[in-house]
Amino acid sequence: MARVVMKFGGTSVADLDRIRNAAQRVKREVESGNEVAVVVSAMAGVTNQLVDYVQSAGSLYDLREYDTVVSSGEQVTSGLLSIVLQDMGINARSWLGWQGPIITNDAHGSARIERIEVDDIIRRFGEGQVAVFAGFQGVGPDGRISTLGRGGSDTSAVAIAAALKADRCDIYTDVDGIYTTDPRIVAKARKMDKITYEEMLELASQGAKVLQTRSVEMAMKHGVRVQVLSSFEDKPGTLVVDEDEIVEQAIVSGIAYNRDEAKVTLRSVRDTPGVAASIFGPLMAAAINVDMIVQNISADKKTTDMTFTVAKADLNRAISVLEDKSNGLTYDSLDSDPSVAKISVIGVGMRSHAGVAQKMFSALADKGINIEVISTSEIKISVLVAEEYTELALRSLHTAYGLDSED
Amino acid sequence: MARVVMKFGGTSVADLDRIRNAAQRVKREVESGNEVAVVVSAMAGVTNQLVDYVQSAGSLYDLREYDTVVSSGEQVTSGLLSIVLQDMGINARSWLGWQGPIITNDAHGSARIERIEVDDIIRRFGEGQVAVFAGFQGVGPDGRISTLGRGGSDTSAVAIAAALKADRCDIYTDVDGIYTTDPRIVAKARKMDKITYEEMLELASQGAKVLQTRSVEMAMKHGVRVQVLSSFEDKPGTLVVDEDEIVEQAIVSGIAYNRDEAKVTLRSVRDTPGVAASIFGPLMAAAINVDMIVQNISADKKTTDMTFTVAKADLNRAISVLEDKSNGLTYDSLDSDPSVAKISVIGVGMRSHAGVAQKMFSALADKGINIEVISTSEIKISVLVAEEYTELALRSLHTAYGLDSED
Repeated sequence: MARVVMKFGGTSVADLDRIRNAAQRVKREVESGNEVAVVVSAMAGVTNQLVDYVQSAGSLYDLREYDTVVSSGEQVTSGLLSIVLQDMGINARSWLGWQGPIITNDAHGSARIERIEVDDIIRRFGEGQVAVFAGFQGVGPDGRISTLGRGGSDTSAVAIAAALKADRCDIYTDVDGIYTTDPRIVAKARKMDKITYEEMLELASQGAKVLQTRSVEMAMKHGVRVQVLSSFEDKPGTLVVDEDEIVEQAIVSGIAYNRDEAKVTLRSVRDTPGVAASIFGPLMAAAINVDMIVQNISADKKTTDMTFTVAKADLNRAISVLEDKSNGLTYDSLDSDPSVAKISVIGVGMRSHAGVAQKMFSALADKGINIEVISTSEIKISVLVAEEYTELALRSLHTAYGLDSED
Repeated sequence: MARVVMKFGGTSVADLDRIRNAAQRVKREVESGNEVAVVVSAMAGVTNQLVDYVQSAGSLYDLREYDTVVSSGEQVTSGLLSIVLQDMGINARSWLGWQGPIITNDAHGSARIERIEVDDIIRRFGEGQVAVFAGFQGVGPDGRISTLGRGGSDTSAVAIAAALKADRCDIYTDVDGIYTTDPRIVAKARKMDKITYEEMLELASQGAKVLQTRSVEMAMKHGVRVQVLSSFEDKPGTLVVDEDEIVEQAIVSGIAYNRDEAKVTLRSVRDTPGVAASIFGPLMAAAINVDMIVQNISADKKTTDMTFTVAKADLNRAISVLEDKSNGLTYDSLDSDPSVAKISVIGVGMRSHAGVAQKMFSALADKGINIEVISTSEIKISVLVAEEYTELALRSLHTAYGLDSED
């Protein structure tokens, strides 16, 4: 007997037929003698519709009311799946965020889970009952519904798995696992059997949208074994596990890309102590996140060129902030370019292997792809290139690191 | 300063434009210095969609899950209206059934309100805050969402008005008041300025679908002054009040009709003590409501013909029950007729006036309309006629009782 959390995303519960399909998978786990908690997203499209309503209702909407409205999508799915399960003869009941309760902090709209009461759930496991949680939601200290941010049902699932000390947390979705890179772009992309939390975290935050970043952090922190698998096919997916569970570690596990950033360059900034703060301070104050940063010292050593990236959606605001001379910032010109892509190679094996970066740079150079910015972390190397080279860069790197599938 | 409850039905909050229109009315009350609680239905069509989902999910669905799913419609509207009000500069917040809380019994799907906690709401009135309640819902003793049955938002509104000791409870809807009869059938129907609770109760249960019957019972019990008015026009509606508030009482106030019943006749039932119980007992056991009942003693005084009405939707089940001879019921033949209409004249003035029934019978006879069944109460006379005479009967009676408008 195992204790299992099964999470079904929006496309896996998009209509009643798919909810029935999900229920069949739940039934199979129950009939294997497992204790089962299910976490559901809203039916595909519902959350977008509700968010549209909220945004049309008021420009500066109250996040507590946003949560009240938007959480209703998962509420509906949890009730419907419970009914379908009962109809199949499975004892099941729905649990809303305030019923568990799943207690969060008061950051409405992007709340963090603080505690989950599971005693009653576990007692009901003993009676053979399946718990069907509405994902994405909890209850704040103000006694009102809170939501966890877009993609939050993944985080709900992992948090519930941690609280229940579940043996695994299966994330059913519309892809069959985590790939070495985007298979829509690189035909030879391979599905990975296993990936470490750290790598998944880099992949998730670098734009591979399979799992919410926060859910991976939480899985790593609590040692929850996460599996990403298809709800439409019967085959194993990708296990996200601790590094020591992976015997033979590839140096590079995957290659991610992100086309949502834009490049900003400030030319001939006066190079004095504190210049970085005078640029990034006002951006931070405007809640604009800066990702990659490069500073080139100029020939005369009196001015410097500063290049960095921001989210495309923030580009215009960033320019306004930087053009506001009241910040005391002095530079010759401001260039911006939204047509860039960030390409990242990721792998825990990098830690113990030299030459990984060199291989990346030469593979790109061979194809005539100019690298505009470089940033690195312990298990990741990211480069910024012109957006038009995205596909070529992904394919070249995928081959260079020996990731291509053999068929 | 007054304390006001404003209830907006599904067509009055059908989309964001209509929600803004409702918000304008709320704003006007707030700006008049009133304390305001609002009760909202789901956006028109939403509840039907959710009920469809539930019915497709499982044939014998769990009413607790039904409540979880179906209550989400009002949840969405309460959040959206709160955002729209805030956007207009009005301090407002949504209240779900479990937040007040509005405590009900455990009859999921058709729960009754037992208690409403209003201390916090009243305290917030003092801070100028408008309370926007999700109608139709409460929380049961099991800590799960309960709903009050279709049309239950009217009952929510009246119950909240009673708990708040509100000065009035305004029910905004897509008609501008209560009419002497259905204006779609009788062009000369008049809007009433006032109607008594008792008359409204008879009208509501006789098929005038403006107010949920239970909400009228509750208004009568607690003396809540209810006004039915249009959310699309600026004019007074119809006040539903205590009898002693109406100075000059018409003998007949209104004429209702109901085409949802079917007639059943059992011929030559053996007439022995207990025969009625042997017919209606099994029907009751099958949860089939019987409305009008007539028993004719036969010439030989040994058998009797029994005629009664059931809801059309229950007719086939009723026939099955009556044809099941294991009940010990003996009769010659069973006739049924779904093509009937019940016409009712209603008025508290009837109590002190003779000849009301006679006028009804002769008005119908003048038009050649045959009366099949008669039943009466203190303030109502109902007759069953062939369905095809519905419009003719309504118009004739409307004229006969002097209800026609003069324009």
